[in-house]
Formats: sequence, C-alpha cells, structure tokens
Amino acid sequence: MFGKSIYINRRKKLKDKIQQGIGLFLGNEESPMNYLGNTYHFRQDSSFLYFFGLDFPGLAAAIDFDSGEEYIFGDDVDMDDIIWMGPQVSIQQNAEKAGVENSAHSAKLGSFLSDAIGKGRKVHFLPPYRGENILRLQELLGISTASINDSVSTDLIKAVVAIRSVKEPCEMEEIKAACATGYEMHVTAMQMAQPGVWEQKIAGTIEGIAAAGGSMISFPIILSQNGETLHNHDHSQYLKEGRLMLTDAGAETSMHYASDFTRTVPVGGKFTQKQREIYEIVLAANNEAHKLTAPGVTYKSVHLAVAEVIASGLKNLGIMKGDVKEAVNNGAHALFCPHGLGHMMGLDVHDMEDLGQIYVGYDEEIRPSDQFGLAALRFAKRLEPGYVVTNEPGVYFIPALIDKWKNEKINTDFINFEKLDAYRDFGGIRLEDDVLVTSSGSEIIGERIPIEPDEIEEIISK
Amino acid sequence: MFGKSIYINRRKKLKDKIQQGIGLFLGNEESPMNYLGNTYHFRQDSSFLYFFGLDFPGLAAAIDFDSGEEYIFGDDVDMDDIIWMGPQVSIQQNAEKAGVENSAHSAKLGSFLSDAIGKGRKVHFLPPYRGENILRLQELLGISTASINDSVSTDLIKAVVAIRSVKEPCEMEEIKAACATGYEMHVTAMQMAQPGVWEQKIAGTIEGIAAAGGSMISFPIILSQNGETLHNHDHSQYLKEGRLMLTDAGAETSMHYASDFTRTVPVGGKFTQKQREIYEIVLAANNEAHKLTAPGVTYKSVHLAVAEVIASGLKNLGIMKGDVKEAVNNGAHALFCPHGLGHMMGLDVHDMEDLGQIYVGYDEEIRPSDQFGLAALRFAKRLEPGYVVTNEPGVYFIPALIDKWKNEKINTDFINFEKLDAYRDFGGIRLEDDVLVTSSGSEIIGERIPIEPDEIEEIISK
Ligand SMILES: [Mn+2]
Ligand SMILES: [Mn+2]
Repeated sequence: MFGKSIYINRRKKLKDKIQQGIGLFLGNEESPMNYLGNTYHFRQDSSFLYFFGLDFPGLAAAIDFDSGEEYIFGDDVDMDDIIWMGPQVSIQQNAEKAGVENSAHSAKLGSFLSDAIGKGRKVHFLPPYRGENILRLQELLGISTASINDSVSTDLIKAVVAIRSVKEPCEMEEIKAACATGYEMHVTAMQMAQPGVWEQKIAGTIEGIAAAGGSMISFPIILSQNGETLHNHDHSQYLKEGRLMLTDAGAETSMHYASDFTRTVPVGGKFTQKQREIYEIVLAANNEAHKLTAPGVTYKSVHLAVAEVIASGLKNLGIMKGDVKEAVNNGAHALFCPHGLGHMMGLDVHDMEDLGQIYVGYDEEIRPSDQFGLAALRFAKRLEPGYVVTNEPGVYFIPALIDKWKNEKINTDFINFEKLDAYRDFGGIRLEDDVLVTSSGSEIIGERIPIEPDEIEEIISK
Repeated sequence: MFGKSIYINRRKKLKDKIQQGIGLFLGNEESPMNYLGNTYHFRQDSSFLYFFGLDFPGLAAAIDFDSGEEYIFGDDVDMDDIIWMGPQVSIQQNAEKAGVENSAHSAKLGSFLSDAIGKGRKVHFLPPYRGENILRLQELLGISTASINDSVSTDLIKAVVAIRSVKEPCEMEEIKAACATGYEMHVTAMQMAQPGVWEQKIAGTIEGIAAAGGSMISFPIILSQNGETLHNHDHSQYLKEGRLMLTDAGAETSMHYASDFTRTVPVGGKFTQKQREIYEIVLAANNEAHKLTAPGVTYKSVHLAVAEVIASGLKNLGIMKGDVKEAVNNGAHALFCPHGLGHMMGLDVHDMEDLGQIYVGYDEEIRPSDQFGLAALRFAKRLEPGYVVTNEPGVYFIPALIDKWKNEKINTDFINFEKLDAYRDFGGIRLEDDVLVTSSGSEIIGERIPIEPDEIEEIISK
C-alpha cells in the first residue's frame, strides 16, 4: 500500500464533501470458485482500497462524518490461522498503516451501526455487487435485499466519483506499471499469432504474463478470430491464415491499478488488402481520438468526431454512403461500431463502474442518449486534467446485426448493404490505447504498443 | 462436454437412489471481481457440471424423482447478447446436449418450485457456497438465509457423493490431462528456482501454463520460501540461496477436472545436508503412502502408517524421541505435519468439499477425530477402486507452533525441543502426487513429476 498520508488525505477530501452521517465501507470477502475454501484471487473492493489501502478479506471501515472519527473493523488471527496462513499483524496495526485511529473486532460492527441508526443517523454506503456483501448489508442494516439498491447513498457515490476521477501522481506510477505489463502481453500475443495456434494457448500465456507482473488480468481476456463479437470470451478456435486476431487484454498491478489495450493483427503476419483498408480507418480513428482528447472538451464530442472518421473511411470504401455528419447523427456508423469510444480507467478497468455509469460518465450537462451505439458510451462528460481514459474505436462486421438492419431497412440512406456481403466473414478490428488527460491535451501512457501495420507485420513475421 | 449418454446415465444412477421429491440443481452465476460486469473466469458448479454438463451461467436444473422427468431452466439470447457475446444456441438445444427433455425459461423456475412445495413435495438441494446462490434459494424457496443450511438434503448429498466418488474412464482421461499440465507447471517452477527471482514471477508464469492448458489453476497457487505456512498465498519474496521453495499447484482442464501436486526444491539447485535429510523422510513418506493406498484399506490407516514413517525419520535425526507408535498415537508427529495425508480429487481439487467433509471423507465406519493433526484429515474412509486421492505428506518447522508446544509442555516425551532450535528457519517440505485406486493397489496418474533429490538438483542446475 501507499504511505498512510495518501489515505488520510483522500478521506479528508471525502469528509470535506460529506458532513453528516456514517460512511460504511465494506471490504470484499474471499470469492469461492467451487467450494467455500477454494477461492479466486482475492480482489479487494476498489473504493475500500482507495480510501483505506488494506488488501485482505474480512474488513469493514466506517467514517463518522459528523465527528470525523474513523474505524477499521476486522479480526485478529489465532494459532490455526498462523499454521495455515502464516504470522499476521493485528487489526490495530493494520488500521495504523491506513492512518485510522480506531479499530475494533468485526462483531462490533453490527452494534456500532444499529446504535447510529437508533439515533436517527444516516448510514451512507455504496452499491454492493457481490452476493456476500448484499447478505452482509441485509444483516447489518436490517433492510431487505430488494430495497438495498434504493438505500445506497448518491451523496457518497458522487463524492467518491469526484475524488477518484482525478488520478494522483502515485496512481499514475501504478497505471504506468500496469501498462508496461500490458505492452509485454500484447507483443507476446502478436509473436504467437501463427496459423494453427490455439487461441486459448495465447490467451493463457498472456494471462500468465499479467500474473507474473504482480497480480492478475484486469478483466477477462478477449482474444479471438471473431473480433466482431465484442465481449467474446471463447478461446476455442485454432488460428487460420487470412483471419484477424483481436486481443483486448490488460493487467492489474499488485496494488490493483489497471491497464486495458486492444490490438488486432493478421494471423501469420501479412494483412490482406481488404484488412489493411479497414485497419487504416480504425488507426486513423484511434489517432484522431488521441488528438482530440483534451481538457475542457466533452468525451461525447470526441466519440462523435471519431465516428465521423469511421463513417468517412467506410464511405471511401463504398460501404457507407450519403452525408457523413448526417450518417453519424442518425447513428448509421453504429452498425460497424456499436460501442462507445472509451471509458475511465484506474483501480477498475471500467473505473468505478460499480458506482453507476450515470454518475461516472455523465452529469447535469451531458446526459445519456438512447440511440443505438451512443447509448453504449460509458463515459461522455467534460474531460479534466488527471482523468485517465481508454480510446478504443473499432470497425466490426456482425452478420446478425447486418441482417437485422437490412431486413428492417434501418439507415438504408447511409449503408450500402450489397457491398457488405463481401465483409460477412471479415471479423472486427479494434485498437485501444490508454491515455492521460494533461493540462494541454493527452498523452499515451507508457510506450505505445506497436500499432502501425508495417510494425505489426514485422513482429509477427520474425 | 461429454456425450449426452454420460449425463443421462449419471442422472439415472441418482434417480435409482432417490425416489421422491424434486432435485434442484442451481448452476453458478458469474462471479464479480470489482463490479458486476467484470467477472472472474466462470466456474460452473461441479455437481451441475457432473449431472448436466452445461458450462455457462444463468442455468438451473431439476429432476422430478417421482416421475423421472428432467428440466433445464435458462434463457435464450437476444440481439444485444449476439453483438456482445456472439451467436448462441437456444436453451432447448442446450438441454438436448445434456439429454434433458424439458427446458423452460428461468422465470418459470419459481412457479415450478412453489407448485411442488404447495403439493407438499420435498425440494432436495445441495449446500450453496456462493452469496448469489444463497440469495437465489432464499427467493425461490422462501426460506431465510439463516435456515438454508438446515434445509439442505442429506439424502441428495449422500447420493451425489456415492456416485461422484468413483471416477469413470472418461473422467480419468481428463484428470490425466490436468496432471500433464501440472507436470509442465512444476518443472517450469523448478527451472526458475534461482536466487533473486521473485516468487510472484514464478507463480504467475505457472498460472499462465495452467491457463494455456485449457482453463485455469485448480486452486490458488502456494509458492513460497515459507513452506511451513500451509496455505501461504503470499508470493512477495525474492528467492535466496540456501532456502527451499515449496510449490503446491495444479491445473483444471477445459472440462474442469483438477490436478494437485506439491514439490519442494532447493533454491539454486543444491540441497544442504540438513535439507536432504528432511527431504528423504518426506519422500519415504510419500512412497509409503503410494504403496499402502489400495482398495479395502481405510485412508485413515494409510495416514497413520505414513505418520510413523515421519516420526521414525525424525527420531533418527534426534528431533523426535520415544516409541514411534506411541508418539503417533499421541499425535506428536503433528507438530511437524499438522495436516492430513490427502483428499479426494476430481471435478474439485478437494472433491465435493462443498457437500461436506463429513459425507465425503467419513462414514458410519470411520468417524472424525478431534486430535490436533488427525482432525485435519479431510478423507479417512475405506478406499475403493476408482477413487482418486492425493498423497501429500510433509514436514514443517512452524516457529509459533513449536513455541506453543514447548511453553505448554505438549508431547514433551516425544519431542526433543532443544534440537529444534536449529530448524526454526528451515521452512517446510511437502511432496504430493495424485493417485488412482485400482483393483489391486494404486497408480500415480500420468508421468511422475521429478521427485528424487538428484533429479531435482539436475533440473535446477541446468
Ligand atoms: Mn477498454
Ligand atoms: Mn492437495
């Protein structure tokens, strides 16, 4: 963990924003795979990590926003724990590491909260996302699971989002380290992109690089010849000459900061003419996104400008037609790019997604859209220095979606459906970089993973 | 998945054992890491996999034990699912793959169960271990989370344990494949066991080998210079000359069958005299366990015979003293080996641990002990052909435990505490193989991972 002053300072910011009630932060518990004792890699809750830094299960924390007092709840270990898990420091010592003055046994949390509730005080908590913590809240607060979502504190959500959105220098060091591991993962995947190789073998190998880098992957790896399936977690195919391999993968550091990159490469190392044409459009879109990502502009406007680059490129190939701006206004490009340009990234790969997209990506100024494509934009609001976002434009040919639009005559003024028959088995291309919004523009974090088509061909062919 | 006849046959065995009521099998849901959409590798529930084979979230199954009718509950995909997750087959088609005649939408499960309950029929279900399924049972059956454990069906548990305990030939093929990946993991770890290497780098690399082999690790990797901490998941140290590296790791195949091996090797490749002396005791214990593992004998008797090998070896070194049999009867060896000799292995690395150790490892004949050490024996009952068990004796020097016994004068007749001072920083050694009980004895599954000290020294020094 960072030094305790980091956490004290973050909690001070929180206390400046909320003056009343109790802030309750539940850490995560172990997450069982196939029985209670066989658990996934422990992943602490990100807001708990951000404000308290302690990275092990069995914890809760509270901030009394009226008095400013802070508490860590947890348990000390016994001899059995020492035999099975090794010597551990006391909960009091752990609290001190986080700069928290008070610590108490877990069993005290219930009465601590019921005392507060009995005095009519509000308990602020963030939305739970694991069954175990939903059950814990049910027990601690005496509210039904169904009503938990109505009881979450939007004040606390908004305060946490405001603080976590702007990355501190110590956080940027971690994100850079995550990006360096991501670099190694992607170059390794490129080197392995040869005909006959099992997708799972490549996905597993780069997952190992993430783990060897300190912790684990930051999200389930997408690695597939069927890049047109956006969240494809199937890795069962064997690579074939003439296909594209799309890899969307990133690492978490041991402190759980994320990276998230996508590259798309030709199996065997040589783009076909048709692949290179689409690739150049996506690369131009990625570069345009980087150029436009800057403080003071809305990310929605970047998304739409990039959509025009895509629509214009596809028009040049005869796949789209008509006025480019009008096409984008009508969402016609979304047939080829149904997802948003990007998202915030930090302790979570989609940063703070547990707190709600509406709070993280939108505000009073920029409201969500319900247009197909634009509705999938996770982050749209005005950029500020210190924000970290991913720019990840793509062009996909999704047969089921093409058929639907053709049959339902959607955006026929802007789509040349006949031309599309030749692309039904194309797959998809996405190119994703992680960028930091600076005071004057944005910078790609770490060394940019090879992205020029010639560079990529060289890496694979070596 | 296997062919449908496998699953039909397994369910037939279950129906032969239970004649009344409804058997309810909940599949697992996705398990969130840090927000709902960011999930761990999906791990289906093992009993669901065993009887229905379908390896994706959102499923439940039911068997009407009176009529013999079977049902799969799940949902068909919509256009959004196709865009994000690719084309999927219908729930009816999936049910057919498992040889199940009836399928219905998830929303129907609630009324299906309440109809049955309304008619006074019993709903048999297995113990839930994930918060999500506890919440689901609470909703489906209208019972409080606190009373769920009292409502699980011991009839169903016993029937499932009886069937799953004896491995089928098709299962042995999978376990062999898991063992082959485990072999590669352990030899790679040995090759990397050089001074200055970060434990996490080795652990991550072999985790990648498990993933590249088809799926993932079968349990969190233990890889540490502090082998005396039995379930040590810390990998933060850098290897030092003169220390031992203990690695307990295995893989799951894409069908989720497990392997589980432990090897302990000298960092840099050369055992010290002291290390080799203890190593030879553990190796003799492992070989004795293999020799004794055979149908008709109780695993408890194998555990105790192996404990005598350990006590006798430690007596030869002057660490233990007195009569060996008496020492083992008094549990004195448990200072050095506080855990059990082994456990069943199959779809779970501790097979069926979710169903309860008392049902998997014990029966009317062999009851659990509460003696320190023996109480930790997960599996004790009489062996039958087709059982797969791990034999994993170890010798550890746990300073906190040594101090406790010394201070509390525990087993002073059998322990030479003065001699132990020289071993306080020794660490621990465990050697674990996976064996199949055959009709005449037992066989190590797959090629045995190098275990002779000379072999190991050669691999590391290369
Ligand atoms: Mn992304
Ligand atoms: Mn084991």
